[in-house]
Amino acid sequence: MSTTKGLEGVVAAETKISSIIDDQLTYVGYTIDDLAENASFEEVVFLLWNKRLPNKEELAQLEKDLFNNMAIPSGIIDHFKSYEIHKVHPMGALRTAISLLGLYDEEADDMSEDANKRKAIRLQAKVASVVTAFSRVRDGKDPIQPKEGLSYAANFLYMLKGEIPSELEEEAINKALVLHADHELNASTFTSRVCVATLSDMYSGITAAISALKGPLHGGANEAVMNMLLEIGDTENALPYVKEKMANKEKIMGMGHRVYKTGDPRAKHLKKMSKELTSLHGMEKWYEMSEQIEEYIKAEKGLPANVDFYSASVYHCLGIKHDLYTPMFAMSRFSGWIAHILEQYENNRLIRPRAEYVGPEQQKYVDINER
Amino acid sequence: MSTTKGLEGVVAAETKISSIIDDQLTYVGYTIDDLAENASFEEVVFLLWNKRLPNKEELAQLEKDLFNNMAIPSGIIDHFKSYEIHKVHPMGALRTAISLLGLYDEEADDMSEDANKRKAIRLQAKVASVVTAFSRVRDGKDPIQPKEGLSYAANFLYMLKGEIPSELEEEAINKALVLHADHELNASTFTSRVCVATLSDMYSGITAAISALKGPLHGGANEAVMNMLLEIGDTENALPYVKEKMANKEKIMGMGHRVYKTGDPRAKHLKKMSKELTSLHGMEKWYEMSEQIEEYIKAEKGLPANVDFYSASVYHCLGIKHDLYTPMFAMSRFSGWIAHILEQYENNRLIRPRAEYVGPEQQKYVDINER
Repeated sequence: MSTTKGLEGVVAAETKISSIIDDQLTYVGYTIDDLAENASFEEVVFLLWNKRLPNKEELAQLEKDLFNNMAIPSGIIDHFKSYEIHKVHPMGALRTAISLLGLYDEEADDMSEDANKRKAIRLQAKVASVVTAFSRVRDGKDPIQPKEGLSYAANFLYMLKGEIPSELEEEAINKALVLHADHELNASTFTSRVCVATLSDMYSGITAAISALKGPLHGGANEAVMNMLLEIGDTENALPYVKEKMANKEKIMGMGHRVYKTGDPRAKHLKKMSKELTSLHGMEKWYEMSEQIEEYIKAEKGLPANVDFYSASVYHCLGIKHDLYTPMFAMSRFSGWIAHILEQYENNRLIRPRAEYVGPEQQKYVDINER
Repeated sequence: MSTTKGLEGVVAAETKISSIIDDQLTYVGYTIDDLAENASFEEVVFLLWNKRLPNKEELAQLEKDLFNNMAIPSGIIDHFKSYEIHKVHPMGALRTAISLLGLYDEEADDMSEDANKRKAIRLQAKVASVVTAFSRVRDGKDPIQPKEGLSYAANFLYMLKGEIPSELEEEAINKALVLHADHELNASTFTSRVCVATLSDMYSGITAAISALKGPLHGGANEAVMNMLLEIGDTENALPYVKEKMANKEKIMGMGHRVYKTGDPRAKHLKKMSKELTSLHGMEKWYEMSEQIEEYIKAEKGLPANVDFYSASVYHCLGIKHDLYTPMFAMSRFSGWIAHILEQYENNRLIRPRAEYVGPEQQKYVDINER
């Protein structure tokens, strides 16, 4: 037995959900380009959970089910008011609120297939309300109920800001949701599968996944990109900033990816949205800076931009607070986490690797007076 | 690449914390027998976190630090009163309360070594208060503050029941805490390491670990053993019950272990405690039943009892509600989880395996009207 640090290259599961082969991401065999250009997030949710695209009736049913399950218990709102909401990490807040949501669900520990499907809908529906309610309570505002007839993407923006979004805004959020929905055995998805392979419940699996996505090496990258852009401030500072960072051997966020070698296929879709949105909002500098940095790093280090890089300027144009970027990532990834949890349950085996012991051996307890 | 389902036999990390070699469990090179017979839980906590046993002053300091950090925010008690506490799974409650505790800790996201050491103490100290406060609020009683001068084991029983325990009771809990403290890369520990390898914070790592331990294939076994013993009811029913279960190919809980082939070295210590405690409390039947079942299953299937098997009757004798067995397991395992989280941080690499895609390929999006 030799240790494979980080399990790099180790195949830990079979999946029918998504694949990354030759730098191409597919969900159930559909390329991410095909889906980003054509599909609604709701279609992708159906696809990931059922391994096929829905027909009209099935899609209408899912949309209705999601809308009908968006309301959250008033206890969640009271909970947001019970601690110092301005001081906490939004992903810590999301972790706690989703865990608490499980305590309100009488089916939380019902492991039947039907109950798990109902919980899947509830979790996917309610996370949009949880994220937006958190943001509004933090801003001293009342949460907003979802509006019937709006898409998931539009309802998210509506519940966040209280205004029905423009088509372009809705498209941007829809695309971001589609692009982030699943990504094979990424760290949070793997966390959730290890968790539920003990036959723990879906709320536990999702709580564990949020806990992992909270880490800056995973979900925090798009917020870090935006912080970098703000620090740079204006287009003319972009290259000097990056050169200095590189001279100091500091990491540029949003560049490169462990799994993609030639480029992240998701990046170009958000790059296009970033160009359109920054132009529409007179915020071209964020796009220009991003593009300059991308080209420089690609030329110098061979690292292309990843999905996080252009999502930063997209979300910024939509007026979304920077520390909500990772909760939004989570909201989308709920769909993939749930798909993987259901797949794990279908053919479960405890995930329990071994460790190689490299510490001291054959020690003998001695009385404390002799230590 | 071939898929190793459940990562069985795959070495996922190096560790200096514990080892299981030739069916012998050691913590930092001390056999579990040596520690179970000689060490206090506090000594084991120090050992796991510092990779050596403490001297007198160090142990006194740790005991003091643990006591001084046991108090929990009143917000946690209010939280226990805010939902239908009788309806929830205690591990769901623990998952949520520990996640919430993170929102009260201003150092939650301080990743410095010093802050992590302080959080380690806080988490280990407060989990005893969280578990006991949950139980008391559920019983309609006020939580009890810890008592200075008592050991961790004694304070747990004191906060749970409001009475200073006998020496034997304290010894039983101390032994159970020592025996459950760590166990190499078990599923919950591995969950926490995968989680924090994204550089997520310690509260997230512990919340994820609790989420995994909640699963009946992992932490739920001792409660399941007690439920089985209660179902059997009396000694003369033990063998007929087990034979019927085996005829129906049903699993007998608390028997066998993926890692131990010849026997779980922890079992004998709790077996001895079970014999003493059941005799003291005039509850011999629980021990007798357990022993009969153990001997029968060992003879028939070659599966020896594991640590969960005798902990059931031990905890039952101490008057502990059965659904608190897993939270108590968690309370002990916090020490190991924290040790592994700190070890992961010391020399981190993202844990991100791959999946083998076995779903449909090369699909093409078609308009919904044509599906």
